[in-house]
Amino acid sequence: MSEDGNKDYYGIAAVWLDAQDITVWSKVTLKTKKGTFKGILLPRGGQGDDKHLTIKLSNGYNIAINLDDIIEIKKTGQAKSEYKIPEKKFRRNPNKPTVVLLGTGGTVASRLDYNTGAVIPAFSTQELYNAFPELRDYCNLETKSVMQKFSENIEPADWIKIANEIMSIIENNDPVGIVIAHGTDTLHYTAAALSFILKNLDRPIILVGSQRSSDRPSSDTAINLLGSVNAAVNVDIAEVMVCMHATSSDTAVFLHRGTRVRKMHTSRRDAFKTIAAKPLARIDGKKIAYLQKNYQRRGQAKGAITADAKFEPKVALVYFHPGLEPEIIDFYVNKNYRGIVFAGTGLGHTSQRVINRLEVAIDNNIPIFMTSQCLWGHTNLAVYETGRNLLKKGVIPLGNMLPEVALVKAMWVLGHTNEIPFVRELMQKNLAGEIIMQERVDDFVIRQMGLNEK
Amino acid sequence: MSEDGNKDYYGIAAVWLDAQDITVWSKVTLKTKKGTFKGILLPRGGQGDDKHLTIKLSNGYNIAINLDDIIEIKKTGQAKSEYKIPEKKFRRNPNKPTVVLLGTGGTVASRLDYNTGAVIPAFSTQELYNAFPELRDYCNLETKSVMQKFSENIEPADWIKIANEIMSIIENNDPVGIVIAHGTDTLHYTAAALSFILKNLDRPIILVGSQRSSDRPSSDTAINLLGSVNAAVNVDIAEVMVCMHATSSDTAVFLHRGTRVRKMHTSRRDAFKTIAAKPLARIDGKKIAYLQKNYQRRGQAKGAITADAKFEPKVALVYFHPGLEPEIIDFYVNKNYRGIVFAGTGLGHTSQRVINRLEVAIDNNIPIFMTSQCLWGHTNLAVYETGRNLLKKGVIPLGNMLPEVALVKAMWVLGHTNEIPFVRELMQKNLAGEIIMQERVDDFVIRQMGLNEK
Repeated sequence: MSEDGNKDYYGIAAVWLDAQDITVWSKVTLKTKKGTFKGILLPRGGQGDDKHLTIKLSNGYNIAINLDDIIEIKKTGQAKSEYKIPEKKFRRNPNKPTVVLLGTGGTVASRLDYNTGAVIPAFSTQELYNAFPELRDYCNLETKSVMQKFSENIEPADWIKIANEIMSIIENNDPVGIVIAHGTDTLHYTAAALSFILKNLDRPIILVGSQRSSDRPSSDTAINLLGSVNAAVNVDIAEVMVCMHATSSDTAVFLHRGTRVRKMHTSRRDAFKTIAAKPLARIDGKKIAYLQKNYQRRGQAKGAITADAKFEPKVALVYFHPGLEPEIIDFYVNKNYRGIVFAGTGLGHTSQRVINRLEVAIDNNIPIFMTSQCLWGHTNLAVYETGRNLLKKGVIPLGNMLPEVALVKAMWVLGHTNEIPFVRELMQKNLAGEIIMQERVDDFVIRQMGLNEK
Repeated sequence: MSEDGNKDYYGIAAVWLDAQDITVWSKVTLKTKKGTFKGILLPRGGQGDDKHLTIKLSNGYNIAINLDDIIEIKKTGQAKSEYKIPEKKFRRNPNKPTVVLLGTGGTVASRLDYNTGAVIPAFSTQELYNAFPELRDYCNLETKSVMQKFSENIEPADWIKIANEIMSIIENNDPVGIVIAHGTDTLHYTAAALSFILKNLDRPIILVGSQRSSDRPSSDTAINLLGSVNAAVNVDIAEVMVCMHATSSDTAVFLHRGTRVRKMHTSRRDAFKTIAAKPLARIDGKKIAYLQKNYQRRGQAKGAITADAKFEPKVALVYFHPGLEPEIIDFYVNKNYRGIVFAGTGLGHTSQRVINRLEVAIDNNIPIFMTSQCLWGHTNLAVYETGRNLLKKGVIPLGNMLPEVALVKAMWVLGHTNEIPFVRELMQKNLAGEIIMQERVDDFVIRQMGLNEK
């Protein structure tokens, strides 16, 4: 497992820097096609490739400069960094269980260099132990980076890669739980994907992210990471979960079921919400409170853990709205899409114009699934004529499955079969808690502040 | 204005029934291509055309039978209906102001016929007065039906029709306020459209719907209708608003600003929520409480009311997700769409693969707008590399405008101009309360019930 946190240049950049006798923290003057820059060569950023240098300019900004743009580089001195790889090395504690932290991208922790102002990703076990000493109270942490991606660039193929890595970690390291650090943009999509992939889980698989990077005073990294590691060791829930801030205050995290969670705010630390149910658990420091009764427990699984990671990426998500032209259906049929998930209005409706065009998809053996853009509440196609017309066409209603979860599930189901009756059966069956049969009145959790609270 | 509620057959059906000497409430035996049915001929349903008969079967169900399918019809007797057009006629009260109720479809009120079990739409002033006598305390109500559509079939052309009807009512009836009865599926889309169309409003324009039809004991029709008529007469807010149940209890309604409201539940009576702000007002019986301070007041408008109702329907709403193929952009370019609204992830992101393909849209003078599928919180394309790459491509971020509202606004703006700088300016300018500059901490109103409430 990597212990270096990828702070050093490699490949072309490393060869080129070596040839010029320039090292990290060198003061440099760069003549480039885009102008001349003076600054300090920083360690490679977390998202860095081997074709860019990162320079801290004297005005405080960091810029990435493409090697191809550089006409000349001159070393003018050497800065002294106060950032150091931690000197203290922590030994493995034989009395503690093992947790593996899997990195997919985004910054879990970062070290601020006070001389240059540079924020440097920290990911190795030793760095994390130094940043968050409490980690050692819970476990022996091992870290492994499987990819370095902003989560908006995560694709179905990456879900498979992560799942395979989880299986390899279980086989080789046999940790009590796995924590996956993931960018927050599509964290819930990956959580849903892993929920369908992994069968017979006997330990928690916990996705964690941070809404504010760890160099900001308001960062949620520490609480989220500590909460997720605590959960990996101590919660008795053997499911795929998301661990994020419970409220905007700085004390507790929630564990959300991977198939019922959604990012509901662009920037708040408590952006992730379980839709139409309580989260599975709440962790405040060392205190764990279970909020649900039905979940898979450790050791409850009847068979061995398996990863069934096949996805059909050609599934469309169509958000119905007034003016939606039915020609979009022809497009997906012509492009050989294998399924279409609608986020319909209300109980799961589209216009009659759209319904009339569904024929072409159905005739091509392309199943149409119906969810609701309301997000809360069940679809019901039996109440109105529109719904009944959709049913007549063979549209498959998906209960209260969230549109994004329905998309991920459809990709997974259609990765296994195109037989419509079997597709219908699998999509309507509750495989990983994605359908809540009965939403409780109390779980419609959108309140309008003010007078209606009374 | 119509006083008959469209209960009678017309056109081909009327001619054909007359020829057979069959009237509404006749007991009939029908031999059809699909089998033989016995039952009672009901009044034509609210959505009925002139090619179907509605029959109440002896098992209690109503069916619509296509005239073309009928081989033979035999009258076997005549049922007696207890349903009657109200005998009491109410006179206009010269001391009360006028409110006009505009019908677009859906059932505002209905009368149950206890003999046949038939639910018959009631919409005329006299019928509504009889159903809800309190209406006469507020105003002289006048009713007008402009269309009979399920709201999922409402198109941008219908928004224009409704706006023109509003202008005609203002000119001819000069009511103190207008209430528009509308199906709930796309009620909020129409509310947003009217908010952009109508300028210099000097009276409230209130959209009202019901989540449960008025023949059900749990119907919200009465409270919503009475609340909206009360508001039309008494609130000092001259804006386009949505009036719906405040909570799941049976007492109060909220007035939501037309550009900030969203249907958040498929079936609950309090499904409509103002996103990221308080509603404008709360009405409980005769008591009106204002929850906001900034709104257009009656008589505050500087000019005459105008309707600027031009829409470019060829605007796409693309919901970004892992696996989204950039080819969808080519499709919209090839189909001559004039704008694309993205519901991006997180702060307003898409994958780099999608960003790379935006060129083709930008080169074709097609503006790309960015909103967030989180629904709460502002887009911010300055924080991460992905956002900055989107900005570099010319993507136009829309603050915290809701994706659906952004779609409606883009249709409206692009109906007026294709000049990108002007499009950008109009889209980013707050024209009708669609952008909240600063979301308050308290207005992130999704709570997870349970332990975090403390």
